Amino acid sequence: MTTDDKILRVALVGATGYTGLELLKLLVRHPRVELVSLTAKVDKPVCIQREFPVLEGLIDMECRPPEPAALAAADAVFLALPHTVSMKFVPELVKAGKKVIDLSADYRFPDAGAYREWYGAEHLDPAGLPEAVYGLTEIYRDKIASARLIANPGCYPTGAILGIAPVLEAGLVEPASIVIDAKTGVTGAGRKASLPLLFPEVNENFRAYNLVVHKHTPEMNLILGEIAGKRVEVEFAPHLLPLNRGILSTIYLKPARPIGEEDVWERFQSRYREDRFIRLLRPPALPELKDVAGTNNCAIGFRANPRTGNLIVVTAIDNLLKGAAGQAVQNLNAMEGWGEGTGF
Amino acid sequence: MTTDDKILRVALVGATGYTGLELLKLLVRHPRVELVSLTAKVDKPVCIQREFPVLEGLIDMECRPPEPAALAAADAVFLALPHTVSMKFVPELVKAGKKVIDLSADYRFPDAGAYREWYGAEHLDPAGLPEAVYGLTEIYRDKIASARLIANPGCYPTGAILGIAPVLEAGLVEPASIVIDAKTGVTGAGRKASLPLLFPEVNENFRAYNLVVHKHTPEMNLILGEIAGKRVEVEFAPHLLPLNRGILSTIYLKPARPIGEEDVWERFQSRYREDRFIRLLRPPALPELKDVAGTNNCAIGFRANPRTGNLIVVTAIDNLLKGAAGQAVQNLNAMEGWGEGTGF
Amino acid sequence: MTTDDKILRVALVGATGYTGLELLKLLVRHPRVELVSLTAKVDKPVCIQREFPVLEGLIDMECRPPEPAALAAADAVFLALPHTVSMKFVPELVKAGKKVIDLSADYRFPDAGAYREWYGAEHLDPAGLPEAVYGLTEIYRDKIASARLIANPGCYPTGAILGIAPVLEAGLVEPASIVIDAKTGVTGAGRKASLPLLFPEVNENFRAYNLVVHKHTPEMNLILGEIAGKRVEVEFAPHLLPLNRGILSTIYLKPARPIGEEDVWERFQSRYREDRFIRLLRPPALPELKDVAGTNNCAIGFRANPRTGNLIVVTAIDNLLKGAAGQAVQNLNAMEGWGEGTGF
Amino acid sequence: MTTDDKILRVALVGATGYTGLELLKLLVRHPRVELVSLTAKVDKPVCIQREFPVLEGLIDMECRPPEPAALAAADAVFLALPHTVSMKFVPELVKAGKKVIDLSADYRFPDAGAYREWYGAEHLDPAGLPEAVYGLTEIYRDKIASARLIANPGCYPTGAILGIAPVLEAGLVEPASIVIDAKTGVTGAGRKASLPLLFPEVNENFRAYNLVVHKHTPEMNLILGEIAGKRVEVEFAPHLLPLNRGILSTIYLKPARPIGEEDVWERFQSRYREDRFIRLLRPPALPELKDVAGTNNCAIGFRANPRTGNLIVVTAIDNLLKGAAGQAVQNLNAMEGWGEGTGF
Repeated sequence: MTTDDKILRVALVGATGYTGLELLKLLVRHPRVELVSLTAKVDKPVCIQREFPVLEGLIDMECRPPEPAALAAADAVFLALPHTVSMKFVPELVKAGKKVIDLSADYRFPDAGAYREWYGAEHLDPAGLPEAVYGLTEIYRDKIASARLIANPGCYPTGAILGIAPVLEAGLVEPASIVIDAKTGVTGAGRKASLPLLFPEVNENFRAYNLVVHKHTPEMNLILGEIAGKRVEVEFAPHLLPLNRGILSTIYLKPARPIGEEDVWERFQSRYREDRFIRLLRPPALPELKDVAGTNNCAIGFRANPRTGNLIVVTAIDNLLKGAAGQAVQNLNAMEGWGEGTGF
Repeated sequence: MTTDDKILRVALVGATGYTGLELLKLLVRHPRVELVSLTAKVDKPVCIQREFPVLEGLIDMECRPPEPAALAAADAVFLALPHTVSMKFVPELVKAGKKVIDLSADYRFPDAGAYREWYGAEHLDPAGLPEAVYGLTEIYRDKIASARLIANPGCYPTGAILGIAPVLEAGLVEPASIVIDAKTGVTGAGRKASLPLLFPEVNENFRAYNLVVHKHTPEMNLILGEIAGKRVEVEFAPHLLPLNRGILSTIYLKPARPIGEEDVWERFQSRYREDRFIRLLRPPALPELKDVAGTNNCAIGFRANPRTGNLIVVTAIDNLLKGAAGQAVQNLNAMEGWGEGTGF
Repeated sequence: MTTDDKILRVALVGATGYTGLELLKLLVRHPRVELVSLTAKVDKPVCIQREFPVLEGLIDMECRPPEPAALAAADAVFLALPHTVSMKFVPELVKAGKKVIDLSADYRFPDAGAYREWYGAEHLDPAGLPEAVYGLTEIYRDKIASARLIANPGCYPTGAILGIAPVLEAGLVEPASIVIDAKTGVTGAGRKASLPLLFPEVNENFRAYNLVVHKHTPEMNLILGEIAGKRVEVEFAPHLLPLNRGILSTIYLKPARPIGEEDVWERFQSRYREDRFIRLLRPPALPELKDVAGTNNCAIGFRANPRTGNLIVVTAIDNLLKGAAGQAVQNLNAMEGWGEGTGF
Repeated sequence: MTTDDKILRVALVGATGYTGLELLKLLVRHPRVELVSLTAKVDKPVCIQREFPVLEGLIDMECRPPEPAALAAADAVFLALPHTVSMKFVPELVKAGKKVIDLSADYRFPDAGAYREWYGAEHLDPAGLPEAVYGLTEIYRDKIASARLIANPGCYPTGAILGIAPVLEAGLVEPASIVIDAKTGVTGAGRKASLPLLFPEVNENFRAYNLVVHKHTPEMNLILGEIAGKRVEVEFAPHLLPLNRGILSTIYLKPARPIGEEDVWERFQSRYREDRFIRLLRPPALPELKDVAGTNNCAIGFRANPRTGNLIVVTAIDNLLKGAAGQAVQNLNAMEGWGEGTGF
């Protein structure tokens, strides 16, 4: 970095959740970023390092109740908010010429109808939807470079799509019979009191939830449909792991024609040749959550089963990093034309 | 059991907490007990095996909102309620001639002043306090046999007092310098939504809490003072473990005169000769939580340190069993003159 | 039980593993069983309650190095041994007229060729294979009643087959496209030192393993093939959970024709009407591991997905109980004509 | 950093343990360090990022079996080796003029007799002992600045001494009655297969171990004795937590005269005024392991108990960072005259 490199002024809205904490850890170390504002749903200003003592020594800054003035000084704004809340902030920020990276689901669908159907709420900014670019960096890098509003992907879609895209876009697998069995750590559910997320209810326990109806399903269908060039309906089954961080997705695919592991390997290699955060494993190696915890990597392994004919792809991400805060910063880097790995 | 053995009709108030669940598991298997009523703070009657599916096949019974009539048919009543709530139920039940085992703190102090000081509430039944017997079975077995109202001990006091009583009552250790460093599983905090007890806040974490001010301190001081025959002020430091069940207490004692491990061993052996739920370990063996999980046992080990002169006693209990539901059933057995191990 | 009820003398070979411990807990409480011998790979006799202090107060018995004489007094023998070891014990025991319940894989295949292919060892007792009955009680109850040698099922096949059998045998689903995504607790890997099973390698981690090549695959194919009346090749993907006990299997099935949840419910209900250890959940309820931990139950839930057409079945078992020791005792009960729930 | 800043060539011996991994993570990010050699007890050279996939993208380097030539190019060497192994490497490295930071216990005692007594082995380099400086940076910063050989402190002594030193050196507490009840995560036991450290033996379990005889006791006594200016014999009781990382120490101290929390606060504040890695909490706040996980911080809180007169200090560190690798890098920084926080 030369001394006249531009420093971007960044604001973070929603600083006190698990994603907010990870954004803070990344942004305070980012060489091109100056944090100018932290806000969250707090009663009165609090020092963010009191709320998260693990930040002591890294940052000394107040987190304040949200107010428009707080964002005025920012060039770019990260919104780490629940869905239906982000869309109250976005229109004004975009109008004010700020770059916006929204980590909620509010701008992931080009179509307010899909939003209404799956999120059960009327979209407040349907006119703003076409502006948004889906921020799966490895897939939409070019559009992200010129975007002003990023819809940062859901954690599950990130892990699933990255494992499917290379073979789907090459026509190697059938779009019609994709099964995604995904398992997430508990931070994926957010930082709010809830009986089913109490320690003794999760510890020594494991369960599937929201089969058939999980809100990330249409997001996968939309993006995979774009990639395949035809309608996709995945079977998506989420599960809750007794651990803090990570999503492991086991993906069952039907090859369009018989396919060997060497072919699959070459396809993944060539597709992700330039992607520093994709880590490919040669069969029979398979990724584990501890390989990616604390990183922005997506690790991908696979096996072709000669008995069944299936191709099984396994991906691992840290749900709070590649699945949220890390990918958001990767997107900022891509928007600004910095190297995607800047600050990691 | 002969066919004309008496079957006791038992009611459980507060069936939907962690302690309630353990009481249910014990009572449905108890050969002398018939469960006649379950109540809890529920909006409408629920099948208890729907609330706790682990009970499927063991019980098929409704749990109802509390109402006096539900208790009329019972000979004995277990109250698994928060403190300040139990004392609203007890007076009427005692007056109706029912045997009552109260698992809250409401009847543990003979004196309403201590209750007010530590629990911050005025006692509603001060006249009923002298009736209550402190239900630490190994210490007060004789009084329990003729009691009508049992104040079941706190989980921490149970683990601590059982490790100290034998050497304290024999004058082997100084009453003035007792340190109790105790570590509990999360079920000890009850089954209610709370941010600090959310899985990601407890998992991979460990902390001390309520140093100096924990409500179980005066209970230990009271009982240990009775045992020592003089005033006792323990240093009690509770900690929260990232696991579901168990309390391990590490207790630091100053011998009144130099003492060897063999002497301590003989003292514990002779004191607990007839106590089926006390498990003594010979030095250098020490108890672990997994040795007692799922049992009503209190495992006790110790070391004498020749360098410092200290005696260190380590005790392990399952906080939900010997620390709550198990000891409550042991007390019922003692009250009824059945063998203390009946139903375990 | 009347006083002249027969008491069966039982020996346990392999008492010091995780399955051995669970068998001990069940057998000491079983009203029709007298434990007459415990053996294990130990250097010299050890009190079993010293090896497993959680048994203190329940049993006081020596566990000895294996020797033929130790088994002479037994009417029935449980073998909780690794595969390739059991088959060294079985022939002589069967010849001596003892009932044998083998918890290893050694007698699960009627054909020594399949054993050689998947377990990489020559079978030492091919002539004994036809004698063995596969001990999935809910499926082979009638044959078990007259069996002398039980091949107790693998933990994964138990959870998978029980979720598939009712709809497969009724022709409701395609045999050709079964996907079983299963997740097990760590006790499933046995009690032996191993770097990948060290606490810090498993805790906060999750991974798939042995995709395509897991030894339980042919066992599922064999039994499901018998049930379907045609060749079955399942896709079986096992995963390792950071918890002690339980297997959750998420099973993806293609209906042979469009099917509603009500039809599936009726099919499961009628198939398992008399099975006390099967617990069916009405959609949208799904089983969790904590619902079955410590029980011999298999909990089963399911969803039909109108978008994809798939039927998804989720089953939960305790891998050490219904998946091993519990089912073994259930089989003993079935062999002896006692109620299957005796001793649970 | 200006472009002509010196880059230090660093070697790491023992790269494949838990401490080695943390050293790697720190050293690859350190702006003044170039890693020139990795060795470990491996059969043949392995890419370190294959052994620890979490390093993928951060490093691409071979780890080789140890051989003297590998260290020749290094200016400084970190030894992350078991005790009794380090002292085979140290003399030659020191003679060759390299700066050495030894993370084992081999050079922590000035006296080979104490080493023999507690570690049960004859010291191979008694003449080298006086050269070593005990690397508790906050206490021995000045001596470290000119040291050539650092004995990096044990994990437990680090957490304990930092909580005691300020009040002990000021004469505020009695040196004669210090009790240290410490609880560690499992990585503290190293990365080697061992039955008691198997996941199911540690998970849902908690235990004290090595009471009275733990090898870190004399290290605490030595350093605290130097600080107090008189003989110290602490009571040190270590415990094993079911989590990966962190040590929480609860320390019980007898004030020399009555003391208030404000006095203690001022004492800690003034003692650690310039220490960036010490984080003081005002009563009643107390540190938690999650506050320090992943950091080089030592968080310190305390309470004065008016009832007992005791002062209770609680400290929290990440055992792999401030308790090992982090403090080692902090020491390198201090030796080189860089800011202590360089590279964190």
